[in-house]
Amino acid sequence: MPVPCETRTEMQAPEFKDFAKEMVDYISNYLENIRDRRVLPTVQPGYLRPLIPDEAPQQPEKWEDVMADVERVIMPGVTHWHSPKFHAYFPTANSYPAIVADMLSGAIACIGFTWIASPACTELEVVMLDWLGKMLELPQEFLACSGGQGGGVIQGTASEATLVALLGAKAKTMKRVKEEHPDWDDHTIVSKLVGYTSNQSHSSVERAGLLGGVKLRGLKADENLKLRGETLEQAIKEDLEAGLIPFYVVATLGTTNTCAFDRLDEIGPVANQYNVWVHVDAAYAGSAFICPEYRYLMKGIERADSFNFNPHKWMLVNFDCSAMWLKEPYWIVNAFNVDPLYLKHDMQGSAPDYRHWQIPLGRRFRALKLWFVLRLYGVDNLQAHIRRHCGFAKQFEALCVADDRFEIFGEVQMGLVCFKLKGSNELNEALLKRINGRGNIHLVPSKVNDVYFLRMAVCSRFTEPSDINYSWKEVSAAADELLAEQKK
Amino acid sequence: MPVPCETRTEMQAPEFKDFAKEMVDYISNYLENIRDRRVLPTVQPGYLRPLIPDEAPQQPEKWEDVMADVERVIMPGVTHWHSPKFHAYFPTANSYPAIVADMLSGAIACIGFTWIASPACTELEVVMLDWLGKMLELPQEFLACSGGQGGGVIQGTASEATLVALLGAKAKTMKRVKEEHPDWDDHTIVSKLVGYTSNQSHSSVERAGLLGGVKLRGLKADENLKLRGETLEQAIKEDLEAGLIPFYVVATLGTTNTCAFDRLDEIGPVANQYNVWVHVDAAYAGSAFICPEYRYLMKGIERADSFNFNPHKWMLVNFDCSAMWLKEPYWIVNAFNVDPLYLKHDMQGSAPDYRHWQIPLGRRFRALKLWFVLRLYGVDNLQAHIRRHCGFAKQFEALCVADDRFEIFGEVQMGLVCFKLKGSNELNEALLKRINGRGNIHLVPSKVNDVYFLRMAVCSRFTEPSDINYSWKEVSAAADELLAEQKK
Repeated sequence: MPVPCETRTEMQAPEFKDFAKEMVDYISNYLENIRDRRVLPTVQPGYLRPLIPDEAPQQPEKWEDVMADVERVIMPGVTHWHSPKFHAYFPTANSYPAIVADMLSGAIACIGFTWIASPACTELEVVMLDWLGKMLELPQEFLACSGGQGGGVIQGTASEATLVALLGAKAKTMKRVKEEHPDWDDHTIVSKLVGYTSNQSHSSVERAGLLGGVKLRGLKADENLKLRGETLEQAIKEDLEAGLIPFYVVATLGTTNTCAFDRLDEIGPVANQYNVWVHVDAAYAGSAFICPEYRYLMKGIERADSFNFNPHKWMLVNFDCSAMWLKEPYWIVNAFNVDPLYLKHDMQGSAPDYRHWQIPLGRRFRALKLWFVLRLYGVDNLQAHIRRHCGFAKQFEALCVADDRFEIFGEVQMGLVCFKLKGSNELNEALLKRINGRGNIHLVPSKVNDVYFLRMAVCSRFTEPSDINYSWKEVSAAADELLAEQKK
Repeated sequence: MPVPCETRTEMQAPEFKDFAKEMVDYISNYLENIRDRRVLPTVQPGYLRPLIPDEAPQQPEKWEDVMADVERVIMPGVTHWHSPKFHAYFPTANSYPAIVADMLSGAIACIGFTWIASPACTELEVVMLDWLGKMLELPQEFLACSGGQGGGVIQGTASEATLVALLGAKAKTMKRVKEEHPDWDDHTIVSKLVGYTSNQSHSSVERAGLLGGVKLRGLKADENLKLRGETLEQAIKEDLEAGLIPFYVVATLGTTNTCAFDRLDEIGPVANQYNVWVHVDAAYAGSAFICPEYRYLMKGIERADSFNFNPHKWMLVNFDCSAMWLKEPYWIVNAFNVDPLYLKHDMQGSAPDYRHWQIPLGRRFRALKLWFVLRLYGVDNLQAHIRRHCGFAKQFEALCVADDRFEIFGEVQMGLVCFKLKGSNELNEALLKRINGRGNIHLVPSKVNDVYFLRMAVCSRFTEPSDINYSWKEVSAAADELLAEQKK
């Protein structure tokens, strides 16, 4: 006979409340004092295994012991992405409203693959993507509230959005080409497909091509690291002459290397002319389009077929929340629509069944965190967050420019400063190693046209002007050490 | 000049603590009283939009107002997956330890794409997959602690695991065939690839074939709905004769339709003989293998190349946590390895960089919830949870068998009972409609070999024997109504 709840030994509600509230205090304490921790851990690979047993315990442990192990086992190996001393990669979001929303999502713990599987999960997502789309002033065709075909969806990551768009573009083109050439089989057509992106686009774009089994050409960006319409058109013409079928282009607004913006206003018309699907990857910089003064950088957006940015990067919604809008989602919905009886329901067609819009079947109730963040920050505060970060980048740039030993690489855009010591790649590699080795701040490098440089991304929502001064002093001190050593 | 923190209007730490603790109480109250809510909502598509504004607010709202809207806006549209009255699909997990772990994950909010991006995130995952693998008695070659090539990884969903394995199998076979036929190009080889699965496997397997752009044949399961070795061998031989290249087979342990178990002990040897990658999809039933008495159902596992099950289904770890083990992860790692400078680090090679093991780039710190659940339940309680659910299925089966009007469809396995009224498909469709219409419990149907039946999945961790009696009475009362009406 089953054991009734009250005699079970696993965690019950009263203990949960104690444990969870203790965790709330821990979280608040962790985040409010995150500046005091060493941003990059000093552990070596394999550090964790000896700290814990080889096997799961047979009997339940006390939550107090688990709690104590967070500092003993986990924290020594954590890279503190939310420290104002963290300047690597791009930001990932973290906010109090999003954390609370995720708690609720974890409690409801529905799987929103169809409308009926939890109507609130689907419907809040539809409306939140409209809210967000309006905040960016996306063209009406992308919004569900326009009453057209278009709409938004939350993907897990920008990589998935790029892949989903590629698969939609592939399906659309296959259909067209099959009509034109009824004698060609699928594999013949796929072997002729060719997509485009800039040599500055994110590694996940190239990977989407590998995953999707199609050619993706990395086109040369111009001297400002932007992909131009002319370059795209030339490539398309070449490929058409060679008997290939251009089908997809990814334009990046805010590249990972330098936060460069492809010329969407040029790429869009060219792509439209040649029936090439335009996907816009604005993973990082897209959040800035909630501020009117940055929207000139998305000029041409009305020409795009799909648009994606990550509120989980720069808009204070915890990972994962990658917002994607499609003008014609049916290309994706129909291409991979496998519809078994156990997933059918009476309301099909009257609301999106988001499982058809994405790679996985299952999905969490992620719209909650978007809702909580938008309401508990308000648009004003979210804009202020973006502007503050852009201001910090300018502050760092000014410090850098004032030091003769340094130079800015490219143009400072958004919250990213690319800079280097005047001198060789080796010198700058040594500088980065020294900065990260001092352990007070954390940066990663990049390389463009064989020039190695350092990237200073403003990442933390806790950052204050004094933090930027601190980070600059660290860079400067590392340079002092390095240059002094080299003089010896 | 940036606004200092203390004068900002967004949520600060003290408010967060109040809000989050209020949410803790709400969650506990929601879950402990979930039985009292109507399991399936009565809302119509489009219900939510009129309940909230058309746009995000400009200024921040009070958290108390957001909290109040959870009951007003969200709850009317929630399908309560954790109610003991929910018997649809398969369970999805929800537990107090997992919810608390996810809070911590949200606070640390690191992105674990490489080891250096947060060593604890990668290392805890490696060790947790070893703990879990040992609990299932997986062969040593799957475990990282064996010191070999193999190891585990947390994927988002079983659909992704199936796709990742397919892509690994594709890469492995492409390499082999290219060596044998240096004159064949990639598209020629891809066009010849053929994979296999049973006609009983999950819709996501068929979809993985569509996404991966390869043929996947749905082979006929035997009269017990199991895929047999003989059937596979015949298909492979046919395809080889037709000049195709068999490369991948998905064996399902616990199908969605009826929880049938493919004969892995027969499939494995056949697949090994023909160089076909064996992926095991045990999404639901895999959790049961933590109980020794069910391990006979995974006989042949040593022949598999990859194995996947979802602790987020039946092992009390909140979604998403899909555990996957690979004997040779390098096929996946190498196939899609795009390695830009900004993601390189000094320790590459000495610990897994999990970004290469999955479709997306980004990843949350999901191992925390596995760690919390394993420690705070202990193996004994997790086994008890599985056995309790299997016992509830037997309890329901006995009630069903005792009623002459009903019959069991197939064999009761794990926590799933497939049953029907003796009679036509139409009769059973009417029965399901009536049951769901009464609104007291929720089931979904399935259809195998043109026989429509109802699926009663035991889903909630709150289920008690009295709940099963209640669910049976609901089924029985719906049958009373239906049959009485038909007699009129």
